[in-house]
Amino acid sequence: MDEKQLSSWLKSRRERKRSLDVHKLFSDLSAGKRDALSRGITLLESTLSEDRRHSSELIQLCLPHSGKSFRIGITGVPGVGKSTFIERFGMHLVNQGNKVAVLAIDPSSAQGGGSILGDKTRMHELSTHPNVFIRPSPAGSTLGGVAAKTRESLLLCEAAGFDVIIIETVGVGQSEVQVNEMVDFFLLLMLSGAGDELQGIKRGIMEMADALVITKADGSNKEPAERAAREYANALHLFPEKQSKWIAPSFTCSAFENKSIDKVWEVMESFLNQTTINGWKTVHRKQQDVHWLKEALKEMLVADFFENTDWLNKLVQAEHEVVNGKTTSYQAALSLYVDFKNKK
Amino acid sequence: MDEKQLSSWLKSRRERKRSLDVHKLFSDLSAGKRDALSRGITLLESTLSEDRRHSSELIQLCLPHSGKSFRIGITGVPGVGKSTFIERFGMHLVNQGNKVAVLAIDPSSAQGGGSILGDKTRMHELSTHPNVFIRPSPAGSTLGGVAAKTRESLLLCEAAGFDVIIIETVGVGQSEVQVNEMVDFFLLLMLSGAGDELQGIKRGIMEMADALVITKADGSNKEPAERAAREYANALHLFPEKQSKWIAPSFTCSAFENKSIDKVWEVMESFLNQTTINGWKTVHRKQQDVHWLKEALKEMLVADFFENTDWLNKLVQAEHEVVNGKTTSYQAALSLYVDFKNKK
Repeated sequence: MDEKQLSSWLKSRRERKRSLDVHKLFSDLSAGKRDALSRGITLLESTLSEDRRHSSELIQLCLPHSGKSFRIGITGVPGVGKSTFIERFGMHLVNQGNKVAVLAIDPSSAQGGGSILGDKTRMHELSTHPNVFIRPSPAGSTLGGVAAKTRESLLLCEAAGFDVIIIETVGVGQSEVQVNEMVDFFLLLMLSGAGDELQGIKRGIMEMADALVITKADGSNKEPAERAAREYANALHLFPEKQSKWIAPSFTCSAFENKSIDKVWEVMESFLNQTTINGWKTVHRKQQDVHWLKEALKEMLVADFFENTDWLNKLVQAEHEVVNGKTTSYQAALSLYVDFKNKK
Repeated sequence: MDEKQLSSWLKSRRERKRSLDVHKLFSDLSAGKRDALSRGITLLESTLSEDRRHSSELIQLCLPHSGKSFRIGITGVPGVGKSTFIERFGMHLVNQGNKVAVLAIDPSSAQGGGSILGDKTRMHELSTHPNVFIRPSPAGSTLGGVAAKTRESLLLCEAAGFDVIIIETVGVGQSEVQVNEMVDFFLLLMLSGAGDELQGIKRGIMEMADALVITKADGSNKEPAERAAREYANALHLFPEKQSKWIAPSFTCSAFENKSIDKVWEVMESFLNQTTINGWKTVHRKQQDVHWLKEALKEMLVADFFENTDWLNKLVQAEHEVVNGKTTSYQAALSLYVDFKNKK
């Protein structure tokens, strides 16, 4: 065996080892091993090009085993009591025999401001339950990237046998629009009495909601919460009919007193029945698939440049020229783009 | 002149006409004609590939005349009183002899929920002032796209002679992170007494703030507002030192009573002085240029596919296959990507 043969043998051996790893990871993951699921998601989040190849392989292995869960988006402004709600709601689900995964998207954590789920103690009971998997969003990425990774994580959780997947978001912005592209049911949590009842959250987010639940309806807050729920119910009726034909209800709950948490799940089950019968669930998922086809394609087109060392070096050079005032960012981008298009 | 010559002549004439148009638009715009600025921004927002070529040309013409304004980001949750604040603050600026442009980013309007500035009447006095230009965000785009277009609009406003540019965002999410990449100064407006004083907004957003202003400090709300401002001031001291060396102040204002609006501007001017002297302003803008170099490049790489009719047709075909269950969105994306890479 000469040096060339040796190197080729080592290479093939390395590649076999790699592909074995992904297959092993997949089989552990689909056997329900939580650490394999964790490692799988970490792999998805990696930006190393070798890891990217592996994660692409892993997703393809998982895809045939995905799609069977009920996918739920839960959002609400900070302070609405999302953690407490999800703790109670999640426990209700596992007590009904479900395996529950909670994934969180928190765009503002990109600034290094601590993740939404950095502190697992905010869901004591739920996070230690054997049938529950909780995972915060990958930090330091762009929102588009975070959303795409969250959707891929969702596919992995499904392949790992989780049958209810909760995607949690914070705030009133773009993350909700992205999450709406990956869930079957979108739940909006709201507070009563936080200023003008109908101004607290953008109309666009309210229109997406499949149910609107007023939290913290306990003690002296019970009456205002009931009133707010009625007002929202009226407001929801003014929106155009949803494609799903589902009429979004508005009601109160108390995670503290564990009241109406079961009602939230009943509403979701009734939504699931209705949209399975009228075909919306399938149509909706297909619409979402079309969305993710485009997103995945965009990511691949961008990765073509950004995962190539030679071009990255040229980019660094262009950055220096921009910083030194020799060119503008727009001109530099254009010139890199034209070179990339012609030379490859 | 045979048919081929005629067609070629018509083509060259059309092209001359086109390029003349952009130059005319630029000269009108830089002469300060507001309708030219409006048309320029509309051109930026267009997705037609011919318009894209024109807008690229327009940006290149504007670039040498841009960069001279003071760029300010203003954010705060819905209900904090942004409109009233910007109305007062903007009037203060024009009374000092400034030309003020207000651009708004509202990601949730992508759902057709009405734009943040759809109703110009929310800034009566400001919107009718001859030295003011107000423009809502382009609807129906992805956030990345909206942010990129907003930044380009900012460059056009600068070329049109506006010397203070305000970028307004709503909410507590990703838009703020994007806006922070295009402004010199980031102002966070907050309410007092909206639940837990320090929980209302994400830490990541607070860390970005160059000043934190508690709004509606009037009537019975004055005392709680003062208290909140002190609490925030303490909280701000716990954050790591900013690269700008600037220490973000926290104080109250009342747009209703027109109190401390001038103080906000004084703080900004003092920031501008300090960061001009210590060099941060230049460094910061260069860092931002590097960010936008990458963003522009990504957009070009994606447009290469998405603005080509042949490939768009292939995409539609792939979408049908996904909808008919013949392939998954990921597989379809991969196959389109590989074809695109090999065939072009």
